[in-house]
Amino acid sequence: MRPAASHPVIRPIVLSLFCIALARAEAPDPLPSWNDGPAKRGILEFVERTTDAASRGFVPVEARIAAFDNDGTLWPEKPVIEGLFILSRIKAMAEKDPSLKEKEPFKAVLNGDTAYLKEAGEEAIGKLVAETHSGMSQEAFTAEVVAFSKQAVYPKLGLPLNAVAYQPMVELLAYLRSKGYRTWLCSGGTQEFMRVFAGPLYGVPPERVIGTEVNLRFETRDRKGVLMRLPGVAALNDKEGKPVGLSRRIGLRPIFAAGNVRSGGDIAMLTYSHEAMGPTFQLLINHDDGKREFAYGENDGASLKAAREQGWRVVNMKTDWRQVFNATTGPERVGAKEPE
Amino acid sequence: MRPAASHPVIRPIVLSLFCIALARAEAPDPLPSWNDGPAKRGILEFVERTTDAASRGFVPVEARIAAFDNDGTLWPEKPVIEGLFILSRIKAMAEKDPSLKEKEPFKAVLNGDTAYLKEAGEEAIGKLVAETHSGMSQEAFTAEVVAFSKQAVYPKLGLPLNAVAYQPMVELLAYLRSKGYRTWLCSGGTQEFMRVFAGPLYGVPPERVIGTEVNLRFETRDRKGVLMRLPGVAALNDKEGKPVGLSRRIGLRPIFAAGNVRSGGDIAMLTYSHEAMGPTFQLLINHDDGKREFAYGENDGASLKAAREQGWRVVNMKTDWRQVFNATTGPERVGAKEPE
Repeated sequence: MRPAASHPVIRPIVLSLFCIALARAEAPDPLPSWNDGPAKRGILEFVERTTDAASRGFVPVEARIAAFDNDGTLWPEKPVIEGLFILSRIKAMAEKDPSLKEKEPFKAVLNGDTAYLKEAGEEAIGKLVAETHSGMSQEAFTAEVVAFSKQAVYPKLGLPLNAVAYQPMVELLAYLRSKGYRTWLCSGGTQEFMRVFAGPLYGVPPERVIGTEVNLRFETRDRKGVLMRLPGVAALNDKEGKPVGLSRRIGLRPIFAAGNVRSGGDIAMLTYSHEAMGPTFQLLINHDDGKREFAYGENDGASLKAAREQGWRVVNMKTDWRQVFNATTGPERVGAKEPE
Repeated sequence: MRPAASHPVIRPIVLSLFCIALARAEAPDPLPSWNDGPAKRGILEFVERTTDAASRGFVPVEARIAAFDNDGTLWPEKPVIEGLFILSRIKAMAEKDPSLKEKEPFKAVLNGDTAYLKEAGEEAIGKLVAETHSGMSQEAFTAEVVAFSKQAVYPKLGLPLNAVAYQPMVELLAYLRSKGYRTWLCSGGTQEFMRVFAGPLYGVPPERVIGTEVNLRFETRDRKGVLMRLPGVAALNDKEGKPVGLSRRIGLRPIFAAGNVRSGGDIAMLTYSHEAMGPTFQLLINHDDGKREFAYGENDGASLKAAREQGWRVVNMKTDWRQVFNATTGPERVGAKEPE
């Protein structure tokens, strides 16, 4: 008996079903942690349009640049993770030098005296950053951050730091890279701090991390050249500092940019991207998910206002994201590494 | 009659000859403008060793970073080409505002009064850079440099600027990239000036150009965000500033670095590279070819002294380079573009 599949009529049908199945198998959903909705559809449509050589909106690979804020855009900021690092460094410093326990602003930090810190303001924060981020070589500082990254646990969420990246954004980064985009971080955190996390969590190499820069000095010690970290900030990569950092580091405007609602810190970056030549896409994350993450807004509502005026896509975590964190997280899950 | 090549004894011989020919055809000399000698052999040996997975000196692709000075290392510096740009800008400014012709230091520049400029020193040079490099947007400045790049001719050599790159170094950049190295410029020239030339002459994208940075400010004009260039230097990328720039921009030490003898400007960069982990290679160009280029040294001999002490390879242009410039030069000759 002849097998059914080789019947002259059935064969083409089976073949075409097979082809459809194959096509589906070859193109799985690149953003499985995103719910269907205008944000996800907008991303997919923009990326397809800018990378399809037959499309009117096609963008050559040299100009496919995507920039991401970090705190509140790729991982949580309640509290800011670099703040946890500062706390852990001050605890370690106070172990060695107990007199710090009686000295402000260290005393306030060690006692969790947020009222004092709010009152003391930027000057106190600046002193804390300077004391915890300088007086050592670049390599020694990186070793401190690596040690912190292995033992710290994110408060309230109870997650180790290798599990705090937002899974939908990790998928977005990998999707963009798979389409020839170069993905950059552009955040207010200090550069060497973020570099420790950028590779394992996001698949972003050190050279594509733009952050706040501390002063550095090349010194010769025992006939060896050492890069020493000095107190003081060389470039603050926040607000209007972000377009400056992007121009210095990349030399081209990002055509895709992502930030979040909280302080207005990303308005300048998103505006700068919005005005790049050709098609552009801006994404603004709104933290409205008190159950799975945190719910908070912005005092003056400036970020959402700018989004309305300039047509940026607002991502509401509660409805746009199927999951926020990936429980089985780890470096191996970061897809589409940058080619070099 | 049986053809000779299919004879059971002859066939393997023919085959192996064919394979040898094929291997040769597949591996042409990557550095045809270099004469055989210790410099060329040292480069080939180092690159093969660090990129052969079976070698003890193998370096993973993430760490294959090469940094190149520009003036005197990739193109001539007698005179410095950015100096020609400053002169052309001042001439244009004096056309619009003739009062500049009577004002120092502009008057000295316009009259070729080098004695005055030497006397006036760094302050005068700083003023000239500030006046010609600021007061406009990044885009407007780039347009000025592009216009200059098309009409300028290099004095004494009589070459258009698209023909002034040293051909042996262009080959070296392309060879390194073909072996998975990322190639960076790290030079004292200003960043946006060099970016105009880095792609067409060297195949280096804007994001891999590290130079002296002017102050920038993001301003909103007519509801549009503009990056304005301000007078004043944010980071001077020379001498001890070079390791600082490399660390900020790359986050890893270059394992391959090239500079030249003149002012000691590359000693810190080459030392910083020399002390990277694992195998490293440093190259120092000595301008001893008054016939094909220029012959000049260094007052205190510090660069050659450091080369002897640290084991850097000295390249003598006269004997190590078969040709200095490529007459049939143009953008199309730049090989092995960076993958993204």
